[in-house]
Amino acid sequence: MRTRLECVPCFVRQALEAVRMTTDDQAVQEEVLRRVLREVSGMDLRLSPPIMGQRIHRIIRALTDNPDPYRAAKERTNRLALVLYPEIRDRVRAASDPLEMAVRMAIAGNVIDFGIGNRIDEETLRRTIDSMATAPLDGDISAFSHEARAAKSILYLADNAGEIVFDRVLMEELGPDRVAVAVRGRPVLNDALRADAEAAGLVGLVEIIDNGSDAPGTIIEECTEEFRRRFWGAGLVIAKGQGNYETLSDATRPVWFVLLAKCAVIARNIGCEPGSLVVQRSATPGPTQAIAL
Amino acid sequence: MRTRLECVPCFVRQALEAVRMTTDDQAVQEEVLRRVLREVSGMDLRLSPPIMGQRIHRIIRALTDNPDPYRAAKERTNRLALVLYPEIRDRVRAASDPLEMAVRMAIAGNVIDFGIGNRIDEETLRRTIDSMATAPLDGDISAFSHEARAAKSILYLADNAGEIVFDRVLMEELGPDRVAVAVRGRPVLNDALRADAEAAGLVGLVEIIDNGSDAPGTIIEECTEEFRRRFWGAGLVIAKGQGNYETLSDATRPVWFVLLAKCAVIARNIGCEPGSLVVQRSATPGPTQAIAL
Repeated sequence: MRTRLECVPCFVRQALEAVRMTTDDQAVQEEVLRRVLREVSGMDLRLSPPIMGQRIHRIIRALTDNPDPYRAAKERTNRLALVLYPEIRDRVRAASDPLEMAVRMAIAGNVIDFGIGNRIDEETLRRTIDSMATAPLDGDISAFSHEARAAKSILYLADNAGEIVFDRVLMEELGPDRVAVAVRGRPVLNDALRADAEAAGLVGLVEIIDNGSDAPGTIIEECTEEFRRRFWGAGLVIAKGQGNYETLSDATRPVWFVLLAKCAVIARNIGCEPGSLVVQRSATPGPTQAIAL
Repeated sequence: MRTRLECVPCFVRQALEAVRMTTDDQAVQEEVLRRVLREVSGMDLRLSPPIMGQRIHRIIRALTDNPDPYRAAKERTNRLALVLYPEIRDRVRAASDPLEMAVRMAIAGNVIDFGIGNRIDEETLRRTIDSMATAPLDGDISAFSHEARAAKSILYLADNAGEIVFDRVLMEELGPDRVAVAVRGRPVLNDALRADAEAAGLVGLVEIIDNGSDAPGTIIEECTEEFRRRFWGAGLVIAKGQGNYETLSDATRPVWFVLLAKCAVIARNIGCEPGSLVVQRSATPGPTQAIAL
């Protein structure tokens, strides 16, 4: 999806929040903000918003001289999510439709998002889990279940640290033998890296690959050749979270988007209300539709 | 007061809201936003926030080719406030301390502020009037009353259209013979101009002067010589609203600030909670204190 004018103030606000989480040095905060303003002033709005996110976080890492400012925050949210993992898993096992409940739990994990500036705690996460267990789903969960069961291989594009523990219950439910999880190749924001997949207990459960990129989303053209091969070859692609939606909504292969629509611009693009739990396949004809045609 | 880093995302958000109120042409909206981003990226943060507001609205007026984009909105809020004027006046007359109640009503009018993006309606205004009639005042209303009664001349720096009708009840209570009201010299945002003072019924009640400037505040150095003479010579200066506070908080003559602290940065600078009804004299020693020393 392209960038909307509403995204512009949001970039600036997010840049300020991000640099404040990263350093207390006001001179650095000010310089980051000035560079971000110049960068945004020349942005091509046909590009998707995470491309600006990528540039903003490159500026922050360069000017703070810190290659991974969110490392501690990511470790904290991984630990927090692991505390809740047994409850989430039990909730899925006890559900009348475990796959649907696993999708709901994966969406609940999507509230862990430092891009929107929140500082998540255990209490908030528990409330989110409870509410997402029963909230209406926007999309076609039965088509998702059908395609997921039929797929020979599933590529799961992870989103954030901490959240990836919630994704684990969905991967377990999908049948982990068929699943490969893809994380970002280099640090950006609190997005999950290989270390977070490992912390989430995914080693030995699913194959872990990385996409080689430092975008807070999946910009196919700049991912590794190996990642692109896997993306185009997978029987089913699950893209988790807003960043992956923003960068893949116009992809020319079918993709299942699983996310909480936190941003009004994204919700409008999807065609849902802000706050919706989304399980939607991209508009591109998928294999099932292709056969039906 | 100087500009804080928190003001930066707010400038960009306000610029987008303002240009959207002004034109539906997306190309113009985009170009305004790009120019504002460049302008803000080079801003001297030692300057007060309304200086950036002034530049933003100059950009909007130039690119939309509209010398007064808020004209209709200002007329609408003047009419709306005039509907409520008899009630406000009666409330002041019936109060045990009419001057204090008039200050409260003037503060209630300060919710009419298109800079913070709201679209005010009669119902909201009535609720505001009710709540401001009894809410705690932050500052020293008895010192204000004492100085106001003693002053030989009062210069009242108006803020917005519509709001100026609420200011009228305070001017009436102060004794209009001693009062001159100063409006902006040229259009900026929904700030009151001479036409709005006239619409508010101030002709023949108080002297109306303008400051010659298009800043959404009072930048003394760029006001007319006549205005500056009046400013330095007045027995008492009342500066209404946030923009006047931001530009005059460091003035070297005493000024009474009367405003609703809507913005967190301004509230912090004043030393009050956001949402406070403020009646405070500037930190600079006033004439009373000067005599006492």
